[in-house]
Amino acid sequence: MPCEQRQIVLGELPQGALRPEHFTLRQGPVPSPRKGQILVRTVLLSIDPANRAWMNGPTYRPQLVAGDVMAGYALAEVVHPGDSGLEAGSVVFCDTGWQEYAAIPADAAVPVPVQSALTHHLSALGLTGMTAYFGLLKIGRPEAGETVVISAAAGATGSVAGQIARIKGMRVVGIASSREKRRVLEEDLGFAATVSHRSENFADDLGAACPHGIDVYFDNVGGSVLNSCMRLLNEGGRVVCCGSVSTLDRPGPPCDPELVPMKIITHRLRVEGFIVLDYLSEWTDAGAEMAGWIADGELRVLEEVIDGLDRAPDALIGLLAGQNLGKRMVRVGPDPGEKSMR
Amino acid sequence: MPCEQRQIVLGELPQGALRPEHFTLRQGPVPSPRKGQILVRTVLLSIDPANRAWMNGPTYRPQLVAGDVMAGYALAEVVHPGDSGLEAGSVVFCDTGWQEYAAIPADAAVPVPVQSALTHHLSALGLTGMTAYFGLLKIGRPEAGETVVISAAAGATGSVAGQIARIKGMRVVGIASSREKRRVLEEDLGFAATVSHRSENFADDLGAACPHGIDVYFDNVGGSVLNSCMRLLNEGGRVVCCGSVSTLDRPGPPCDPELVPMKIITHRLRVEGFIVLDYLSEWTDAGAEMAGWIADGELRVLEEVIDGLDRAPDALIGLLAGQNLGKRMVRVGPDPGEKSMR
Repeated sequence: MPCEQRQIVLGELPQGALRPEHFTLRQGPVPSPRKGQILVRTVLLSIDPANRAWMNGPTYRPQLVAGDVMAGYALAEVVHPGDSGLEAGSVVFCDTGWQEYAAIPADAAVPVPVQSALTHHLSALGLTGMTAYFGLLKIGRPEAGETVVISAAAGATGSVAGQIARIKGMRVVGIASSREKRRVLEEDLGFAATVSHRSENFADDLGAACPHGIDVYFDNVGGSVLNSCMRLLNEGGRVVCCGSVSTLDRPGPPCDPELVPMKIITHRLRVEGFIVLDYLSEWTDAGAEMAGWIADGELRVLEEVIDGLDRAPDALIGLLAGQNLGKRMVRVGPDPGEKSMR
Repeated sequence: MPCEQRQIVLGELPQGALRPEHFTLRQGPVPSPRKGQILVRTVLLSIDPANRAWMNGPTYRPQLVAGDVMAGYALAEVVHPGDSGLEAGSVVFCDTGWQEYAAIPADAAVPVPVQSALTHHLSALGLTGMTAYFGLLKIGRPEAGETVVISAAAGATGSVAGQIARIKGMRVVGIASSREKRRVLEEDLGFAATVSHRSENFADDLGAACPHGIDVYFDNVGGSVLNSCMRLLNEGGRVVCCGSVSTLDRPGPPCDPELVPMKIITHRLRVEGFIVLDYLSEWTDAGAEMAGWIADGELRVLEEVIDGLDRAPDALIGLLAGQNLGKRMVRVGPDPGEKSMR
């Protein structure tokens, strides 16, 4: 057990685009857990657009403060369980922050019964997979035969949401930028069509890909893509407000008053936001259904594991630029039980 | 039965504000009903913001066409029922347009079992009352003790929605401009507080009137008032998108991307539109509940009856400027059975 550890500090809150200079790598002490806390070792850091959103203001958590260790969810190994009842060596999901060890309140650690590759518990079976599952099924409530459009479709959440929609019998159209992403979506994940939002003819392309309009739009990006999708929404359409990555680094184009609220009224739209943590009590059942689809080969898991805590800032900055294909995570330490193999 | 009648034609579609010059009063023929049609005599025209919205583009009905008799819902007396099974002399609710007589498809006429003052069937027991009832209870779904904010609170829909919310145990805050409207809301209709959106300190005033934030915002106006209310919405808050009168004559200020979608996501908001005609099958039950409240003195009906078809354009233009207190309607002819008394 070392006395010192590496930590990445958010040195400055970004005003516009997030850059590497906003972060500092430093040596800090390994904390001693206080009463009610446990000590955990970070294994895999989850890299999410939400990391960036937390810098902009209070969300479902207080705004990040410059000078603190960067916040972030992770899979971690319990080192000192204290009197929590957790087992040493077991895996928990918690906000360790971007550091090798963290002392966290025992009741903020969610035990993870590992039943698949550990990485799956951050991707399809973890926060982003659950986000896709509950966002699509509880908020979007699509019906078989409906047209579902997903933005950031090759991302961690989008790639899973699109496949769940396909499995449940909807026609799925993905919005993604690169040719390679679109190939993977169409050829490997079974999307019916894909459209690039970087095309000059994006609105027309989207219309052509959705000849019967849009019934459910699963929005990961906000901004002008949200506007374009709202124009095509059918009566009774639903917008699942999941993320707004296009507006995190800079304000997006404001939405047209024709869309909010006139289109919402005339077309009886429902535009609804959600936070996946609200559904924690249902994660076990959802995870079992998802694990079944993975085992059957129905649901393919796209993951990118980047090695080394020091690469976390670049991993996040690249994610915000849309460089990832599937769920991005950073390996901070070996899986539990693999330490001796290093 | 005359051969000729007075009609008001929409001579030109407005580009900005609606003005009297957009309408023309003319003499036209009393139509002969074709097969499947009935002939009705217009009694009371309903004057609604929706009349203006129909000029701007397709909504839940096709856009209005210049040169046509102005469209509008009304209570009308059946003159020639044809083989519809309706009784001559009975009252129906239908789109007569702004004219004294209309031939309409029999299946587009909703029979009105008159059980209260006839005007009530256009106000609290009619389209706007039902809009308030279903919008608040089905879309807003407020719970006792929650804070409900209503814009255009002294209007036909707002004055009813606010009273229903009060009857159901919510704390109701109304947004209205004039001192007289606010007095009526607070003293006569039981609103807990009112705020003027024309105040320079509107946002602060609204915040002070809603110390626990807003749980349900019943939006009749859109634009900057919608923005201000969204900023105060609590987690799990709901926006009932009912109308957008502030943007009908001119585009409103666009909504901030922080509000759509960031605030919607972080605060799990539901922003939902509806059209009261979707709930036609439930009007009878709702009407019975509303009639009970009126009989008990719990629900007070605010109405303005303006006399004469030729005054319909000014009635609508004044409504769009917020001059009305409660439900505005235009009397085109006497109530059924009162003809001989003229």
